[in-house]
Order: sequence, then structure tokens, then C-alpha cells
Amino acid sequence: MTGWVAIAGLGPGREDLVTPEVTAAVAEATDIIGYIPYVARIAPRDGLTLHPSDNRVELDRALHALQLAANGARVVVVSSGDPGVFAMASAVFEAVEQHPEYTETDIRVLPGITAMLAAAAAAGAPLGHDFCAINLSDNLKPWSLIENRLRMAARGDFAMAFYNPRSKSRPEGFEKTLNILREECGTDRLITFARAVSTPDQALNTVTLGEATPDMADMRTVVIVGNAATRRVGKYVYTPRSAS
Amino acid sequence: MTGWVAIAGLGPGREDLVTPEVTAAVAEATDIIGYIPYVARIAPRDGLTLHPSDNRVELDRALHALQLAANGARVVVVSSGDPGVFAMASAVFEAVEQHPEYTETDIRVLPGITAMLAAAAAAGAPLGHDFCAINLSDNLKPWSLIENRLRMAARGDFAMAFYNPRSKSRPEGFEKTLNILREECGTDRLITFARAVSTPDQALNTVTLGEATPDMADMRTVVIVGNAATRRVGKYVYTPRSAS
Repeated sequence: MTGWVAIAGLGPGREDLVTPEVTAAVAEATDIIGYIPYVARIAPRDGLTLHPSDNRVELDRALHALQLAANGARVVVVSSGDPGVFAMASAVFEAVEQHPEYTETDIRVLPGITAMLAAAAAAGAPLGHDFCAINLSDNLKPWSLIENRLRMAARGDFAMAFYNPRSKSRPEGFEKTLNILREECGTDRLITFARAVSTPDQALNTVTLGEATPDMADMRTVVIVGNAATRRVGKYVYTPRSAS
Repeated sequence: MTGWVAIAGLGPGREDLVTPEVTAAVAEATDIIGYIPYVARIAPRDGLTLHPSDNRVELDRALHALQLAANGARVVVVSSGDPGVFAMASAVFEAVEQHPEYTETDIRVLPGITAMLAAAAAAGAPLGHDFCAINLSDNLKPWSLIENRLRMAARGDFAMAFYNPRSKSRPEGFEKTLNILREECGTDRLITFARAVSTPDQALNTVTLGEATPDMADMRTVVIVGNAATRRVGKYVYTPRSAS
């Protein structure tokens, strides 16, 4: 039996946003590895071992997947959203780099609906023109890098999507982000807070940067900031395809 | 009968990358509207009218969808990839803005797997850290805006994904893009050309910016440029989760 690792995106939450490719991989799997709430989305069955693990052990989890596959297991590493966007795909390749004996492992990345695209769809089309995706967590990068990226994105007049905007351990980061954005983009720019998109808890809130406050975001929120042309039409928010 | 418009993403090409949400909307539809090759992906059946149209008539197509829905039709406007990323969602909202009588139309955007995420998955995880998506077509924006966005994205050390990199009518744009990138990022930066991802014609080619030539891209290619830390491991290309 030849083992493999599939790093799969489960989408933002609702089951009809999981691709058939991912569903098929889960059906073939012997082992599911991932963060506790994502593994909880997989139905238990005979012959399938679930390996839920806590947050911030991504490299251990990745190495575990590679070890199991080397022993013949068919391993699906689950992420929410898309595994290549602030999720487990990079962690698995980091683990391969640190453990070159796994370089020949059969690894596939199975894309998924990432949170910003589900959030944009729920709001209208705020990412309809050039945009950036920025992870506001400073666990793995210095704040100075985040600040520079925010300013460059604003000066390029990109729309922006923010992942991990705010955590209990560092509530000040998102307040700094809002201040930088007001300085660079003014107070009239539209900002959408999209919480728990596609789940029963979904909540959308679009305000101006002048009205935005840090407590509008939590760790289940994706934040989308428009470009200079982003506007409302009816209950929707959209960015036109042309520049102005 | 109450009409509606669903703007749906068919993903990059392979059928197992179409979400069940989109499949269900197509099954309920009375009318399918879209660019000829995307409408061709929908199986004909009794009670379903297909309305294929040519490129560059996006606003006409959007208005047609709104008119049909006002008469009770259940209309799916199809895009490839995700409808909110350089596709039909913004065009529909532009049409609503120009024709306020359609403001109350029931419009839903159904997300899909956009080309850059499928391309990144096929290559490894080159978008595993902060990144930008830029449409290099200058049909709807001046070249000066594209150039500024390229430079700001480079100075923010974002990875970048380019849509519509090169067309027969403006082959010089992508050559200028490569020159700007070499100036801003140096010649060692990795660049991946991902053509026709998820289709039988899929072809991946990763080279350095120094080795890249304009003819490596065509209109079926998504181009991904790494950030300063993007590297190869085995046959994969990935961007680590940390800054360096």
C-alpha cells in the first residue's frame, strides 16, 4: 500500500462549499489530521482514525502526517478555507524541508473556498478589482512588516482582505491597523466585517473607516477594506472593474 | 414565480472543483448566461435555456440576467474560477447601479475556486503568506496604475498572482511587467507559470525572474511570483509562514 498526504481545504463552514475533490479524498483516507474544530467536521467511520490537535502545533502536525504516509497511510490534513492561504500547506512543505527523507512523499494540495472569497460573495463583490490578502497575526512576523504591507497596499490602491484581525492576546494590533488605514485611505473608505461566513452565525457589517472600531472584529471575522472606488449599491458592496 | 440571479463560479476547469452549491443552483436554473466557453460547461436539458455570449459584453450580459429575473426566470450567470475575482459579479452590480429598477432583485454570489488558488495548489504553496492578486489586462485601467501596483506589491514583499498576463493585442504589457519585477525584486525571485490548471492541458513551469520570458504566459496562464522567502523543496514551490 502506497501512502499519501492530501492537504485539503474544507471551505468556510457550510458543507455545500466543500469541493467534490475534497469529499472524495476524505472518503479514501485512513487518517485525518488537523486543528480540533476542523477535524470535528469529518464524520467518523470504521477504518478512519481522527487525529485532532491544538492550535500552534502546525509543524508537529505536518510531520505526523508525513510519518503516517511513509508507513502506508492515506492522510488528509484538513484546513478550513483553502489550505494554501494562511493554513496547513506551507507548514507541510516546511516540515519536508526540515526532514528531507520525506521529499519523495506523494503530496497533493486540494484547493478550497478561502474565507475572503466567501465573505466577498456574501457582501457583493468588494474584491472585484486588484486586491491583497494580509494575515494580521504577528505570531510569525514582526509588526513592522505588517505595517509596511498595509501602507504599500493602501498606496497601491488595492482592496484588502485581512485574516486573523484580532485575538485576545494582542487586541492592540487591529486598532493600530485601523489607524494606519485611516491615515492612508481617509475616513470615508468602506470596510466590511464578515463574521462566521456561511455558518448559522454569519453576520455582515459594512461601515466607513471613520465608523470602524476594533471590537467589530474577532478571530472568526474576515475584514475587507475597499479600494478608492468601492461603493454600495442597494444592500451590496462592490468594487467596479475599472479604475475609477 | 419569483425570479433570481445567482452569479456562480465554475472553478478552474475540472468538474470535481465545482462546489455542490453551484451544482444545485444550475439544477434549479431556467437560464444560463455567460461567456461562450463557460456556458459550454453546462449540460443542456429541457427547461433550461443557454445564452452564450462573446467576450467584452459583460454589462450587456449582466443587464440581460436582471431583465430575465424580473420576468420570473431563475438565472445563473456563470464565470470560471470565482465570480468575485476579475469576473462577472462586479459587472452585475455595475448594471444594477446603472438601472436602479433592479436594486431589489434577489442576487446571490456563489463563490468558486479561483485560478490562482488552483495554480498555487498545483505548484505547492507559493501563496502561503501575504499576497496580492493583480489583473494585468489594461482594457479597463491605465498602464500607470498597473505599474504602481506592481511596485507597491514588490516593496511590500507580497507574493503576487497575475490574471490575464498576456494577450495577442497587447503583448508588450507582460514584458514591461517582467522588467519592473526584475528591477524591484532582483533576478533570483521565483516565478511560476501555471497554464490551464486542472484541465488535461495543465502545464506548470517555475523559473527565476532572470530566466522568465514573456512567451511563457498566454491568456490561459496564471502567473505567481514569490516573495523574498519563496523557495523550492523537492518538486514543490512554497512560501513559508514566517517572514524570512
